[in-house]
Amino acid sequence: MKPTAAPSADAALALIKPEVRAQIAYTLEAPPAPRKLNQNESPFDAPEVVKEAVIRAAWGEPWNRYPPFTPRELVERLAARHRWLASGVLVGNGSNELIQATLAVTVGAGTPVVTPAPTFSLYRLLVAVYGGRHVPVSLTPDFQFDVDALVRAARDTRAPLVVVNSPNNPTGTPFPDGAVARLLAETGALIVMDEAYQDFGGPTAVPLLTDHARLVVLRTFSKAMSLAGLRFGYALAHPAVAAEIAKARLPYNVNRVTLAAAHAALDAADLLAERTRAVRRSRELLERRLSGIPGLRAFPSAANFVLIRCVARPAAEVFHRLVEEYGILVRDAALSALLA
Amino acid sequence: MKPTAAPSADAALALIKPEVRAQIAYTLEAPPAPRKLNQNESPFDAPEVVKEAVIRAAWGEPWNRYPPFTPRELVERLAARHRWLASGVLVGNGSNELIQATLAVTVGAGTPVVTPAPTFSLYRLLVAVYGGRHVPVSLTPDFQFDVDALVRAARDTRAPLVVVNSPNNPTGTPFPDGAVARLLAETGALIVMDEAYQDFGGPTAVPLLTDHARLVVLRTFSKAMSLAGLRFGYALAHPAVAAEIAKARLPYNVNRVTLAAAHAALDAADLLAERTRAVRRSRELLERRLSGIPGLRAFPSAANFVLIRCVARPAAEVFHRLVEEYGILVRDAALSALLA
Repeated sequence: MKPTAAPSADAALALIKPEVRAQIAYTLEAPPAPRKLNQNESPFDAPEVVKEAVIRAAWGEPWNRYPPFTPRELVERLAARHRWLASGVLVGNGSNELIQATLAVTVGAGTPVVTPAPTFSLYRLLVAVYGGRHVPVSLTPDFQFDVDALVRAARDTRAPLVVVNSPNNPTGTPFPDGAVARLLAETGALIVMDEAYQDFGGPTAVPLLTDHARLVVLRTFSKAMSLAGLRFGYALAHPAVAAEIAKARLPYNVNRVTLAAAHAALDAADLLAERTRAVRRSRELLERRLSGIPGLRAFPSAANFVLIRCVARPAAEVFHRLVEEYGILVRDAALSALLA
Repeated sequence: MKPTAAPSADAALALIKPEVRAQIAYTLEAPPAPRKLNQNESPFDAPEVVKEAVIRAAWGEPWNRYPPFTPRELVERLAARHRWLASGVLVGNGSNELIQATLAVTVGAGTPVVTPAPTFSLYRLLVAVYGGRHVPVSLTPDFQFDVDALVRAARDTRAPLVVVNSPNNPTGTPFPDGAVARLLAETGALIVMDEAYQDFGGPTAVPLLTDHARLVVLRTFSKAMSLAGLRFGYALAHPAVAAEIAKARLPYNVNRVTLAAAHAALDAADLLAERTRAVRRSRELLERRLSGIPGLRAFPSAANFVLIRCVARPAAEVFHRLVEEYGILVRDAALSALLA
């Protein structure tokens, strides 16, 4: 006999916050395809040396024991990598967990949160879950950041938080040199720089940490480090700010195998950096080839993906023909924008 | 040169919600010890067959690719295990992530949340992060649940949420037969039953799911399944409620290796169940031995740990002598209670 649920969930749903019920869940349904480009992942699996090191380490770990509360050695290596303080490094189950924790400790009922738009749709969804008010600031028609408008929006709404993805998903746009410093100088907000794609290009805000406590920089091993499947990310912030964000992060959030994988990826940093350079060269080649195709426009990208505008044919048609005729799965950003 | 942080973080800290700043972070600092009992873990490492299966699977996985958005096969196996609907199963990075998500979609500024006290301190911390108001309902002096008082507190405060850990950490008390049905009948709240330790004893609320949409049951593989180090838990709920909770859960929250480990643990369910029976037999032996020791009182437990009250000597002294003279690390629940 198949189980069935209670006939009505109305009374239960009435207990869910209305702002949550109004949201569409983050989702991604996509057909399998031999050339999978739709999630901005690395095209390379983790190097064999990384997999071997992780499997060797995993075998010897006590799986019945919680991971260390603070993985000190890893935190110190990440700190050294960015010349920052170990007490200002937080590790997470992907950098998404640290976006979530940062929003959780700053956003309550009605809190304005400024982000460029379009951008990674998770920011908007989480702001809504915490009862905040998303203040989107449109990119220019050429998908460049409008720094003046961001400053104005943050000042006008007195937003305690501005979240910028640089390079930006899905446009590939880097936040320009000096723009983070401007946000810090001209607004009173906590500036969260999500640098998930920064290994592929564009400036980094990390050096500003030394002089600015109102800055949180998020990094991930899901892109250039080929570890999207193992989930590892981290935040860099002033130690006092990191200690507050940590309160909304779950204890034992990064499992033992992923901790080993992060170590192994750091050990293989040179090899991974060479692959990152190869991705950048491919991107440049792709941009040149795309720019020679009539009927579409490719926008310059600092990330590991390229946004195109379909002029001659509808985007949905291009999307479907690419996957059906060529086995190339891309992301339909026109569709994503509806959610963003 | 050692990096240094900006001289003052005051302006940044002013942007953190005051209710968050008032909280003490969840933490656990403990000395290493050969007999580690302080985290209620399984004393057995994951079976070799589990480790072997996971390592075999891990090697073949594309680590550069995000895990599946919904791991359908695993969700269906978990549903079958509990005779529940696959659409009413949510997987998480430990069951803590699903506690967090459930609170996030129900708790806003001032929302009352009823829990017994003392209990797992994470509930109180997360309620505070989301701006809610924790309503603790004391256990009886013998550490039994006071179901009348829970019902009264939920009704008096019109709390949309009651969270009960059964068996309860740190007391080992099972929520009595019929008590969940009473909470459902006599309050209008969503009842969250955290059954992390239920494999070791006490009733389960799972059969009530069929008739009650206001019920969420949380389960974990961190205890009886020996996988605390890999982080896996899940929630069972009405599909409509599960869909709302999913909005606060991060996409790709369970990594590829942990998904493989959950499958392997389900494959080894018989072996793990035999180990669970062995833990129960050890608990009964321990309780008998403890009850023969003058100067302390052992409380009956349905979990994989036993709470004792130190009568003759201070608890802190017993804690320190156990670890220093015998290498036995326990949890000082008197200290935890300060945080709870």
